[in-house]
Amino acid sequence: MALRVGIIGGGQLARMMIAPAVELGIDVRVLAEEPGMAAQLAATAVGDYRDTDTVLAFAREVDVVTFDHEHVPQDVLTALVDAGVAVHPGPHALWFAQDKLRMRARLAELGLPQPDWAAFSDAAGLQDFLDAHGGRAVVKTPRGGYDGKGVRVVSAPDEVADWLAALADGGELLVEEHVDFTRELAQQVARRPSGQLVAYPVVETVQRDGVCAEVLAPAPHASARLSDVAASIGARIAEGLDVAGMLAVELFETSDDRLLINELAMRPHNSGHWSQDGAVTGQFEQHLRAVLDLPLGDPSPRRAWSVMVNILGGPVSGGLDSRLPAALEAHPAVKVHTYGKDPRPGRKVGHVTAVGDELDAVAYEARAAAVFFSD
Amino acid sequence: MALRVGIIGGGQLARMMIAPAVELGIDVRVLAEEPGMAAQLAATAVGDYRDTDTVLAFAREVDVVTFDHEHVPQDVLTALVDAGVAVHPGPHALWFAQDKLRMRARLAELGLPQPDWAAFSDAAGLQDFLDAHGGRAVVKTPRGGYDGKGVRVVSAPDEVADWLAALADGGELLVEEHVDFTRELAQQVARRPSGQLVAYPVVETVQRDGVCAEVLAPAPHASARLSDVAASIGARIAEGLDVAGMLAVELFETSDDRLLINELAMRPHNSGHWSQDGAVTGQFEQHLRAVLDLPLGDPSPRRAWSVMVNILGGPVSGGLDSRLPAALEAHPAVKVHTYGKDPRPGRKVGHVTAVGDELDAVAYEARAAAVFFSD
Repeated sequence: MALRVGIIGGGQLARMMIAPAVELGIDVRVLAEEPGMAAQLAATAVGDYRDTDTVLAFAREVDVVTFDHEHVPQDVLTALVDAGVAVHPGPHALWFAQDKLRMRARLAELGLPQPDWAAFSDAAGLQDFLDAHGGRAVVKTPRGGYDGKGVRVVSAPDEVADWLAALADGGELLVEEHVDFTRELAQQVARRPSGQLVAYPVVETVQRDGVCAEVLAPAPHASARLSDVAASIGARIAEGLDVAGMLAVELFETSDDRLLINELAMRPHNSGHWSQDGAVTGQFEQHLRAVLDLPLGDPSPRRAWSVMVNILGGPVSGGLDSRLPAALEAHPAVKVHTYGKDPRPGRKVGHVTAVGDELDAVAYEARAAAVFFSD
Repeated sequence: MALRVGIIGGGQLARMMIAPAVELGIDVRVLAEEPGMAAQLAATAVGDYRDTDTVLAFAREVDVVTFDHEHVPQDVLTALVDAGVAVHPGPHALWFAQDKLRMRARLAELGLPQPDWAAFSDAAGLQDFLDAHGGRAVVKTPRGGYDGKGVRVVSAPDEVADWLAALADGGELLVEEHVDFTRELAQQVARRPSGQLVAYPVVETVQRDGVCAEVLAPAPHASARLSDVAASIGARIAEGLDVAGMLAVELFETSDDRLLINELAMRPHNSGHWSQDGAVTGQFEQHLRAVLDLPLGDPSPRRAWSVMVNILGGPVSGGLDSRLPAALEAHPAVKVHTYGKDPRPGRKVGHVTAVGDELDAVAYEARAAAVFFSD
C-alpha cells in the first residue's frame, strides 16, 4: 500500500503537494475547509479542523498528518498524538508557530538574533517600549496574522486602542523594535523527525504592502558568511523547536550586516515556491519526504538564478485562464502555477517562476510574465 | 471555469499528466478502464472506452478529449467528432497510429525514410520478402502490439503460422526489413491543432527484450546534421499525419548514417519521460498545452544531460515503497517516479531520472538508483 499523507487544510500549499506526491507514489489526502478549494483534487474530506472528531476520523486513514496552515488548535493536535497518530510538525513545535509571543520567548531562550521585543497589555506598557526605541515600533497580535494582517507600525498607543480593548483577561500584545533593515531574506530548512536536516540557499524576498511580491533565489550579493549564518539560524530553530517538515525563517538584513529573525512558518512557504522549478528538490516534495521521515532530497539550485513573482489579485475579469495564451506565447520558458482560486484584490492566486544564468534576464522574464495575469 | 481536459485511459501516461495539470490550473479528468488504476486520483469515470455512450457522456464534461493510449475504436472517435467534441489527436491521425500497415503506407506516400516493408497474407508472400532480404525479416501484427509484443524476427513462414491462421478474411500482416542498426533513437515533437510545432532533442533509447530500458537525452555523439534530420522527420510526420499533441518517432540509426522510422506513438511516450525533470517543459505539460491549443513551452534541456532508467518489474516483495528510503538516501538528487502499479515481471512500474553536466556520472546515478527498485 502506498504511503499516505493527510494534509489538514485545502489551500494552495496543500494543492502544490499533489504533484510531487503523485510522482513519488504517495497517496495524499486533504481535509478541506469547504468544497471547491485549491487542493480539491486530493480532498477526501470536508470539515472543520477545529473539531477533534472530524480531524481524528480523517487522521485514522493516513500514515502521517501534516498541514496547509498552522491554525489547528492545540487540543485537537494533542488528541491526535494521544490517539497514536504521527503528526508533523507536532503540537510542541506548532505551539511556537501559533503564538508570536511564545515564539519570541523561545528564540530568546535559544540565544537567536531577533529584534528587541516585549509583551504588553496596556497603553503604558507600549509607551514604555516606544520611549526606549525612538518613538516608533511594530505591534503584532500574537495569533492569526498573515500577509501583513495583525501588524501595525505605530508611534502612539492609541493606534492600537482597538486591539487593547479586545484583549481578553490576561491577554497580551507583542511589540517589536522597528528594524531599519536594508532588505528581507528568507531561509528554509527541511528536517526529518529522526533528525536529518538540509538547508536551501537563503533567498531575498521583496514585500509590497506587507505581502510577498517576489523572491530572488539565491539572495543576490549574499556573502558566504551571510549564507552560512542564515543556514545556521534555520538549523538552530528547526532543532530548538523540534520542527519536522519545512521551516521558513523570515529575516531582516540590517545595514550593519546582522540578520534578525522576523517570522517563522512551519510548512512550505511562499518564499520557497521558486524551488518547485529552480531546485533539484522542490519544497513541496521535500516537505512530504520530511514528514514521512524519508531521506531528504538535494536542495541545490538547478541553475544559477530563479525568480518567483506572485500573481496578486489576478485579472479583474475573465479569470487566470483567459490570460494563459498570451502569457505562454510571450514567455515559453516561464513556469506558470495557478491555485484554482477566484481573483480578488490582493489575493495570492498563482505565481510564475523563471530560471536561468543571468539574474537580470531571469527577473525580467518572471516579472514580464506575471504582468499578463494582472488586471 | 478552468480548462478541462478529458483523458481516455487510466494508465501511467494519464497519471503523469496530473502534476502539470494541477500546476497550470487545468482540470484533468480521466475515464479509467477500472478502479484503482495509475491515474486514479483524477479518475472521474470508470468505463469501457469501446462503448460510444460511455465515452460520449465522459466527453461532454470536458473541453478536449485526449488519450493515455491509441486503442479507442474509430467508430467511437468519429462519434465524438460528430457530436462536436474536440478530439486531439483526431481520428484521422489515430487511424495511422492504430494500424502499422496504414502507417507504413502513409509514410511511403510522404517520402519518409523507413525500412523496406510489405503486406502479406500467406506463407508465400512472406517467403518472397525473406528471399529478397537475406532470409531474415521482422513480422508484425498491424494492431495491438506494444513493448515487443506482436513482433517476431523470423527466417521462415512457419514461425508465424499461428498469426497467419488467425488472419481474418482480407487480413494482412506486416513484414519489415531486419535493419542492421547501430542504435535506436527517438524524436519527439509537439504540435498544436493550429499548427505550432516544437521539437525536443533527439534521444537514444536502449531496449532490452523489446522493452525500453533507458534513455539518454540528448543522444550522445549526435551530430547537428543527425539532430536536424531527426527533428525534420518528426515535424514532417506530425504535419503529414495531422497530429495534435505529443508525437514520438522511434528511429533506427544505421551504420551508414541513415535514420529509418521504426514506430510511432501519438501521445506522451516512454522515450520522453526524461523531460519531466530534464527539460524546461516536460512532455506531459507539453501534451496538455498542445491538445488545448495553448502556446507550446520551451523543449530545451535544463542541463547538458538527462538519463532516464525504467523500473521494470519492481521488487519481488514489499512494493516500491519499501525501497524508497534506501534509494533516496543513496541518491538525493535523483528523481523517482512511480506509477501506483503492483510489481509484476517485466511490467513498467516506475522510472528514475538523473540530470547533470557529465554524461557518465548522470548515467551512473540513474542506473544505480534504479537498482534499488529491482528484485
